[in-house]
Amino acid sequence: MKALVYHGPGKKNWEEKPKPTIQEPTDAVVKILKTTICGTDLHILKGDVPEVEDGRIIGHEGVGVIEEVGGAVSHFKKGDHVLISCITSCGKCEYCKKAMYSHCENGGWILGHLIDGTQAEYVRIPYADTSLYLVPAGADEEALVMLSDILPTGFECGVLKGKVKPGDTIAIVGAGPIGMATLLTAQFFAPAEIIMIDVDDNRLEVAKTFGATHTINNSDGKALEKVMEFTDNRGVDTAIEAVGIPGTFELCAAMATAGGYIANIGVHGKSATLHLETLWAHNVTITTRLVDTETTPMLFKNVQSGKLDARQLITHHFKLDQIMEAYETFQNAEKEKALKVIISG
Amino acid sequence: MKALVYHGPGKKNWEEKPKPTIQEPTDAVVKILKTTICGTDLHILKGDVPEVEDGRIIGHEGVGVIEEVGGAVSHFKKGDHVLISCITSCGKCEYCKKAMYSHCENGGWILGHLIDGTQAEYVRIPYADTSLYLVPAGADEEALVMLSDILPTGFECGVLKGKVKPGDTIAIVGAGPIGMATLLTAQFFAPAEIIMIDVDDNRLEVAKTFGATHTINNSDGKALEKVMEFTDNRGVDTAIEAVGIPGTFELCAAMATAGGYIANIGVHGKSATLHLETLWAHNVTITTRLVDTETTPMLFKNVQSGKLDARQLITHHFKLDQIMEAYETFQNAEKEKALKVIISG
Amino acid sequence: MKALVYHGPGKKNWEEKPKPTIQEPTDAVVKILKTTICGTDLHILKGDVPEVEDGRIIGHEGVGVIEEVGGAVSHFKKGDHVLISCITSCGKCEYCKKAMYSHCENGGWILGHLIDGTQAEYVRIPYADTSLYLVPAGADEEALVMLSDILPTGFECGVLKGKVKPGDTIAIVGAGPIGMATLLTAQFFAPAEIIMIDVDDNRLEVAKTFGATHTINNSDGKALEKVMEFTDNRGVDTAIEAVGIPGTFELCAAMATAGGYIANIGVHGKSATLHLETLWAHNVTITTRLVDTETTPMLFKNVQSGKLDARQLITHHFKLDQIMEAYETFQNAEKEKALKVIISG
Amino acid sequence: MKALVYHGPGKKNWEEKPKPTIQEPTDAVVKILKTTICGTDLHILKGDVPEVEDGRIIGHEGVGVIEEVGGAVSHFKKGDHVLISCITSCGKCEYCKKAMYSHCENGGWILGHLIDGTQAEYVRIPYADTSLYLVPAGADEEALVMLSDILPTGFECGVLKGKVKPGDTIAIVGAGPIGMATLLTAQFFAPAEIIMIDVDDNRLEVAKTFGATHTINNSDGKALEKVMEFTDNRGVDTAIEAVGIPGTFELCAAMATAGGYIANIGVHGKSATLHLETLWAHNVTITTRLVDTETTPMLFKNVQSGKLDARQLITHHFKLDQIMEAYETFQNAEKEKALKVIISG
Repeated sequence: MKALVYHGPGKKNWEEKPKPTIQEPTDAVVKILKTTICGTDLHILKGDVPEVEDGRIIGHEGVGVIEEVGGAVSHFKKGDHVLISCITSCGKCEYCKKAMYSHCENGGWILGHLIDGTQAEYVRIPYADTSLYLVPAGADEEALVMLSDILPTGFECGVLKGKVKPGDTIAIVGAGPIGMATLLTAQFFAPAEIIMIDVDDNRLEVAKTFGATHTINNSDGKALEKVMEFTDNRGVDTAIEAVGIPGTFELCAAMATAGGYIANIGVHGKSATLHLETLWAHNVTITTRLVDTETTPMLFKNVQSGKLDARQLITHHFKLDQIMEAYETFQNAEKEKALKVIISG
Repeated sequence: MKALVYHGPGKKNWEEKPKPTIQEPTDAVVKILKTTICGTDLHILKGDVPEVEDGRIIGHEGVGVIEEVGGAVSHFKKGDHVLISCITSCGKCEYCKKAMYSHCENGGWILGHLIDGTQAEYVRIPYADTSLYLVPAGADEEALVMLSDILPTGFECGVLKGKVKPGDTIAIVGAGPIGMATLLTAQFFAPAEIIMIDVDDNRLEVAKTFGATHTINNSDGKALEKVMEFTDNRGVDTAIEAVGIPGTFELCAAMATAGGYIANIGVHGKSATLHLETLWAHNVTITTRLVDTETTPMLFKNVQSGKLDARQLITHHFKLDQIMEAYETFQNAEKEKALKVIISG
Repeated sequence: MKALVYHGPGKKNWEEKPKPTIQEPTDAVVKILKTTICGTDLHILKGDVPEVEDGRIIGHEGVGVIEEVGGAVSHFKKGDHVLISCITSCGKCEYCKKAMYSHCENGGWILGHLIDGTQAEYVRIPYADTSLYLVPAGADEEALVMLSDILPTGFECGVLKGKVKPGDTIAIVGAGPIGMATLLTAQFFAPAEIIMIDVDDNRLEVAKTFGATHTINNSDGKALEKVMEFTDNRGVDTAIEAVGIPGTFELCAAMATAGGYIANIGVHGKSATLHLETLWAHNVTITTRLVDTETTPMLFKNVQSGKLDARQLITHHFKLDQIMEAYETFQNAEKEKALKVIISG
Repeated sequence: MKALVYHGPGKKNWEEKPKPTIQEPTDAVVKILKTTICGTDLHILKGDVPEVEDGRIIGHEGVGVIEEVGGAVSHFKKGDHVLISCITSCGKCEYCKKAMYSHCENGGWILGHLIDGTQAEYVRIPYADTSLYLVPAGADEEALVMLSDILPTGFECGVLKGKVKPGDTIAIVGAGPIGMATLLTAQFFAPAEIIMIDVDDNRLEVAKTFGATHTINNSDGKALEKVMEFTDNRGVDTAIEAVGIPGTFELCAAMATAGGYIANIGVHGKSATLHLETLWAHNVTITTRLVDTETTPMLFKNVQSGKLDARQLITHHFKLDQIMEAYETFQNAEKEKALKVIISG
């Protein structure tokens, strides 16, 4: 089969690889129908995620059709269409019993990271019964790809951890795909005001159509000042970090109100400074989380019922054998006005 | 001044009463600009609330303008426009410190019940600082009257107690003003499906325009059967009772799923049967609550930001001296297609 | 092998049955080291649980040693000592993912109920990986038998559902094994006052040594009056029902304070009357729950660390072939001063 | 009257000051019966709290007797014995309505900070009705002084924010008065293991008698290593910072398990480094809080019922006119083996 293979920092190739097979009775092999590219894949390609080995097929998102299942798989059979979760869960360990699948002792984020991933014609999914979701006939499978990672990530790490509540004033820093997924799902809790902060005017315009009530272009570095002015120096109830650099985290920490929440989503490579000399008495809660995908069934239901329009996150379409071109587009997101690209098998 | 006075079961009159005065330094006297009639007022008039004495001015909702304040009132001054809460809170007792104002040792629901109420030209409000809310210039004061009672009641007793969550399937039994207020505020938590149950087709039609995804006319007594069919025999995540009779409560208890919630809002005059022989193992939570109005500031903010369209609950308008006619309309709600009537001073 | 077999209402026998074998790859066969009798077993023997068939081996509690495991069992091997949970969990269904194992679509309470149970020399345990707990060498295995059912039942259905908090005044109605397990685990949350109510003075005396701060013998039917006097007419923060009859449930509902909790643990055979005419405005929460055993790992840790003295619940010891005698003792609990009886293999 | 007066960094004096009088109708004047010294008072004396002005009477803890009340005070009268809260609450502002009294718009921590405090013969208490607690006859008034600040601080900022749960393994860094108050109140939630970390062997010995299950003297800087060894590299469920320097905060952040809590209590003067490059995926929650004293009534009840032995925090006794000597002892806590000193009027 053909697959997108990582060959060390800066090197990727669309090349022939052996088709995966069942290795454990809990495995399934899935033929990819739809996949996509994540910002994390770009980090891998840059060499920022050193545990990814030369020769690894990357990608951790997708919808496919079951090709084969192991003997202990009871929930799926050949021919079933399935949504692939970016997080693999054994369903048995201490962390899985607490629904903290991100830290599953036998899984977690392994797809396209520690084992071969979804940017390929086929993928092997361990613990299929607890890591896949059945896709009903007639569902919008491209929209569902948004449920593999970005919608649960934005919702769990940003909205739930940030305790967004009706009537709140919240800020989201970063209007990329994750920030946009956060924006969409934050509206499940009816905040009165949602301030979107980025440096790309196009993304801020899109954010308005997705439900942002206010936008700030922070190219001038005055976002904090503007947020404080907008909130009468009170600050925001929840500040959500969806970028992954110290400056945006520190901005979030500075704009949270007394009693507020700072929810980190971003993948960070460096330490940040925590101003405890002012925060110690400010009654704030700071959270970090790798997505657990425990809310995927709920998000799935809201996509199906029409409450959540996941499709609007998709800006571009490619075929699997155009994946190098898809990367080109996604890597130039600002110029290409790209959010998520759908790659069809 | 003129006021609507209760004179024993079945008897009310629009008559002359002395204008109220400051009795305690924490009091305010408020001139009524807008008031309305509550289902509870009809209960009082029937004689169902025996602690209401002959001669009492009824009514516990309204917006007005401050006429005079006592010496210890620090948050309001003559001329301020204010929203009157149906619940009076001293701000100092054990219950107020827990934000359970409904059980305030010095207040609670007293307006139009144990002390004179708002269906009058003027009303005395005890503990003004903690029982009134400032209305900003330019606000839609008719819409704000919906915040005196029905919106916090639907939200606190139905939605919050019923733990409505994104993706849920919920049912609301009773499509009167309180049920409709519940329907509007339930949408703060993005349930996937909202089933509205009533016996009046007109109200069910209106419910659809307010956001109900499904409606059931229970004139045939088959609501339970239909809900179970709709949910594949699973039942609803939350069933909210907004009528106040044993049958509707028992319907709610029967339609809740394992792990579900049954939230009572209705004012009951009789006991219900609780089927513990099936419910003991069904992991349900049943709640009752008299509104505390602790969420009024949040609801106020969402009305102001446009997230909550309170105005759509208003169907009729009268002048204060037409209040007997307003009662006529409200008492014939089905025929008159009435939800809330606004009575202007 | 020998086993305790139900033969219809009033009939049980210690008789020869075939030794269980692996039927599914997720099964384990466990040799019983320690088991016990539950009040629910007495209900079964009376015929109160009609779905139990003639020929069924009863019992759902115990500690044993793994005799054999199926091919898909990865957490246990022959020779491991294990605690058996009264609740069987598949780990994969919607309910298991929510940690509501009691309603597992493939398990739940099935042991000694819908499949053969633990009052035997051997027992087959389905979904062994998610329904057993490893017992470390040197553990007090008799004490651990209390974790199969009564300790998680008292803690989850009574203490957690009843939201017992530091400083609370709580009442537990019923000082049998479940009530006592509730009493012990309620102290995890430091209530200021624990009132134990029963009609057996011996049990009330024992309750004092287990941590009850006050006891009431309700033989005179004056428990409500006494609780109200003790609490200055305020009522208790949490009332826990551990009997299973309408009268004790109604007593709990009557003694809860405004804002309080009524947590039902008892197995009920009849409906109760719910006084909504007073409760509607009393802000109470009523809960029912079949134990999920989700807290068993935590309770296990507290037994091991010495924070929870489970052994004190054990009053009598028997050998497996004395099980008919053990039943005799347990059925005459008041006379025999029996709480839990340990039956050793 | 005589009072302990701050005269700029390093200078304090026991000198004559005018006796306070009622300034607002919500004030009370209280004659001090018992007071104490807080670590924060030492910070003030060093000049670390620049908003404290020359001439300020310091101290924010104590029990006294009401000397006089303003016209709007309804809960207290001359002669009542009262506990003084370190936090003053108006009971009316947005923050007070959320029980976040620390950020009261008209109060908060003002005593001995922005207005004159309790280390004096008399003190004026603003908003007396919502800032004092009635002390019943016969109560141990010295023990109750521990409720003015350190017990609610340890409980709210450390135990509640740190979500201490039954069965948890927790660590408390800092065995001074606040750390000890945290240790005592953490036991309200039955953690299985409590690790106390300090550099003073005497304090660690005392911690054992207060309920610590393990102690680590971090003089060798190996606390992290030892905690990881003790927890099989898992880390602790909750790490509580009770010192106030970057190193101890960073130690706490490093020892929290995936899914764990880091609760800051310490008063910090410098920033700390937050290792987001590892924490981003570690699912942690970091909290800061200035005590709100919202749990004081509950703690009061548990002291009165005997569940909380507050007296054991007291190591030394002085008279008010020996206060300079009391400071000498408290400033040399390690040598003097001092926790809290009681100073009697």
